[in-house]
Amino acid sequence: MYRPKPHAACHMPKAVPLTAIVLNASLKHEPTLSNTGELSEELLAELKKYDVSGKVIRLADKNIPVGLTFRESEDDDWPAIAAEIREADILILATPVWWGQRSSLMQRVIERIDAFDEEYHEKGRSALYNKVAGIVITGNEDGALHVMGSIMMVLSWLGLTLPPECTAYWVGEVGNPLEGDTKLRRANKATKAMVKNLARNLAYHARLLRHHPMEMEG
Amino acid sequence: MYRPKPHAACHMPKAVPLTAIVLNASLKHEPTLSNTGELSEELLAELKKYDVSGKVIRLADKNIPVGLTFRESEDDDWPAIAAEIREADILILATPVWWGQRSSLMQRVIERIDAFDEEYHEKGRSALYNKVAGIVITGNEDGALHVMGSIMMVLSWLGLTLPPECTAYWVGEVGNPLEGDTKLRRANKATKAMVKNLARNLAYHARLLRHHPMEMEG
Amino acid sequence: MYRPKPHAACHMPKAVPLTAIVLNASLKHEPTLSNTGELSEELLAELKKYDVSGKVIRLADKNIPVGLTFRESEDDDWPAIAAEIREADILILATPVWWGQRSSLMQRVIERIDAFDEEYHEKGRSALYNKVAGIVITGNEDGALHVMGSIMMVLSWLGLTLPPECTAYWVGEVGNPLEGDTKLRRANKATKAMVKNLARNLAYHARLLRHHPMEMEG
Amino acid sequence: MYRPKPHAACHMPKAVPLTAIVLNASLKHEPTLSNTGELSEELLAELKKYDVSGKVIRLADKNIPVGLTFRESEDDDWPAIAAEIREADILILATPVWWGQRSSLMQRVIERIDAFDEEYHEKGRSALYNKVAGIVITGNEDGALHVMGSIMMVLSWLGLTLPPECTAYWVGEVGNPLEGDTKLRRANKATKAMVKNLARNLAYHARLLRHHPMEMEG
Repeated sequence: MYRPKPHAACHMPKAVPLTAIVLNASLKHEPTLSNTGELSEELLAELKKYDVSGKVIRLADKNIPVGLTFRESEDDDWPAIAAEIREADILILATPVWWGQRSSLMQRVIERIDAFDEEYHEKGRSALYNKVAGIVITGNEDGALHVMGSIMMVLSWLGLTLPPECTAYWVGEVGNPLEGDTKLRRANKATKAMVKNLARNLAYHARLLRHHPMEMEG
Repeated sequence: MYRPKPHAACHMPKAVPLTAIVLNASLKHEPTLSNTGELSEELLAELKKYDVSGKVIRLADKNIPVGLTFRESEDDDWPAIAAEIREADILILATPVWWGQRSSLMQRVIERIDAFDEEYHEKGRSALYNKVAGIVITGNEDGALHVMGSIMMVLSWLGLTLPPECTAYWVGEVGNPLEGDTKLRRANKATKAMVKNLARNLAYHARLLRHHPMEMEG
Repeated sequence: MYRPKPHAACHMPKAVPLTAIVLNASLKHEPTLSNTGELSEELLAELKKYDVSGKVIRLADKNIPVGLTFRESEDDDWPAIAAEIREADILILATPVWWGQRSSLMQRVIERIDAFDEEYHEKGRSALYNKVAGIVITGNEDGALHVMGSIMMVLSWLGLTLPPECTAYWVGEVGNPLEGDTKLRRANKATKAMVKNLARNLAYHARLLRHHPMEMEG
Repeated sequence: MYRPKPHAACHMPKAVPLTAIVLNASLKHEPTLSNTGELSEELLAELKKYDVSGKVIRLADKNIPVGLTFRESEDDDWPAIAAEIREADILILATPVWWGQRSSLMQRVIERIDAFDEEYHEKGRSALYNKVAGIVITGNEDGALHVMGSIMMVLSWLGLTLPPECTAYWVGEVGNPLEGDTKLRRANKATKAMVKNLARNLAYHARLLRHHPMEMEG
């Protein structure tokens, strides 16, 4: 039901350098092309226009063991990623769709990020308040809107703010041959429109919360 | 991820005339073309080859009030539909996707069908045991697999058996203009393959359960 | 996984009177107690502390025909509701869970609200930008988190901003007798905690966007 | 909405020894108690009454790398598991709920099981036809019905038959302290009723398909 949306420039709050971090949960390893990764790079390029610098972390090339704590093993790569999340103004969760759901790597991230929720209980406020979140999704066909909603739900409980049109995605027609995905995605006008509006809305809300953060009393 | 599947003929249990009923939850009224309705008719045509006769009920032209009982008002059309469900060997729930979910008319049917669940509690067995269920879904883009799973879950609790590949659906590429849906759907090979395998698998399981129904002792 | 969260007061943006509208999609008619309605009233009471006034609209007692336009019949109650949505700063969608999904009345609202999306296409911007959304959900058992995510997805595409912890819900243990729901819900500490944090976060974000709305150039 | 269902004995097809395999996607390692694992053992005990023998595989203690093929590395444990799936009459997918979804280990299994779907394309029929599937789910609160539907959808495309009431689950009331889960689950009558009906229905359908398998012509 999503059709290419018009894009309008927006009067922005006072400029301030911001940072974004993208967690790419593609099942493919570097240097194989990841559709999700490429779409994430397009989003970062668009965010750059709003003075937001960022980078993509390819989860398939990291070691993120099963578990629910901040550190699960000596060679656990999650603590370093968690530290980068703490620093960023904007968190982007990027995932392919496999059988109608986020990938096992994105689910692993969500299980590990749960430790922020534990910390919230202890400290009385979320470390992720005043951060803004976006989502990037690609799939051969079907599943993006469900994956989007299921990730938004998690992000909201973790304390992040979700701007309007918080996702950019691509999915093809059912039965669409896998080989053609990249070409179709690159040409898709709806997906391009989503990238532009998502970048604008992320930047607007992130600046606004940087200038006026929710601050608890006491 | 669904790609056109090969179809093979199957040695079938002894022929026996069977009946199917399709509930079409399109939001459009007769005589407007319903994509969901047309795909349902294709399925019925394929089922006919297996000695299954059936019909489609267009819910948008029925009066099905809000509620949870078998009869909610004097002019309630649900009791007659419920009676046809009791008679049928095969129940097909057919729905468009609106914002990632089954339509409000399909949700209404599911709320009303809940009365069968109450009856199960009272009588100690489901009136829908030994019936086989299928699903038909169409959408402009995205959502079919989620809608399919969410409907399967309900059908299973109600007591129906679900054959392999229990759904036929069509969804287009994101941003796909609405006007082109019907043409693309009619030409889609994956959707055609689903219809053939769904009809074969429904007929096989329905015949099997007709010849060998689960019968409770006592 | 939601456990009762700590609540802290928050330094708020400059006070400004705001309005909220709750659409209650309970299947029950007035004056029958609606769990969803009662929880919505608790939220409104909490919002009042932040200078937000509001009201609940009981959809089961309105006439909202099937369709996708702003007005579907002479006696269609939707146009008046749509006008109230335009005026409000905060939109709350409140629904029970039926078989794992939002009710048919909430799905109907989402189908009808689609007309705002059409308008967005024509006018180049959403009439719902700068509004903030919240969600209220009750169910006998299971389904709240899925319903929450699926509604958040719709709200985001429509142009609303979602604050952290954007939902208040109650669901019971599986097998829990229906008669006990109201009592258990009223006593549930996790649900109470959600109401407090949701009200604070809605008020904060709504005030912020009132003082600093996204305004398109040109 | 699930309430404890009555259980009735069922006239069964001629006895034949059958096998079941349970894949337990708990995030916890042996010997830590897994609620999902314990509920799976209850199901196996019940299945034994119908001449079905089975075992549980604890995925957290296996090495199942990211990927989509039958073998992803030298020390990949998946090929041995896939071989056991081929031998079994009944496949049970058992998972905890984390943030409203199946665990990352269950999602990994579903990504790896996709290789059966590739094989189906090549051979013209699914190696999983005539097998029957069941599901076991536990969660601290909320999410079981959604997880159930999303797994049923995958199982159906893979070629398995789903009997009525194909799942046994437990979830608690929202806000329910984690420490109490095991005790509440063990005492829950609705969960016990599900186990009994699931075992009966799995055994019935598996025997029926063993005696009368779908066999393709040619």
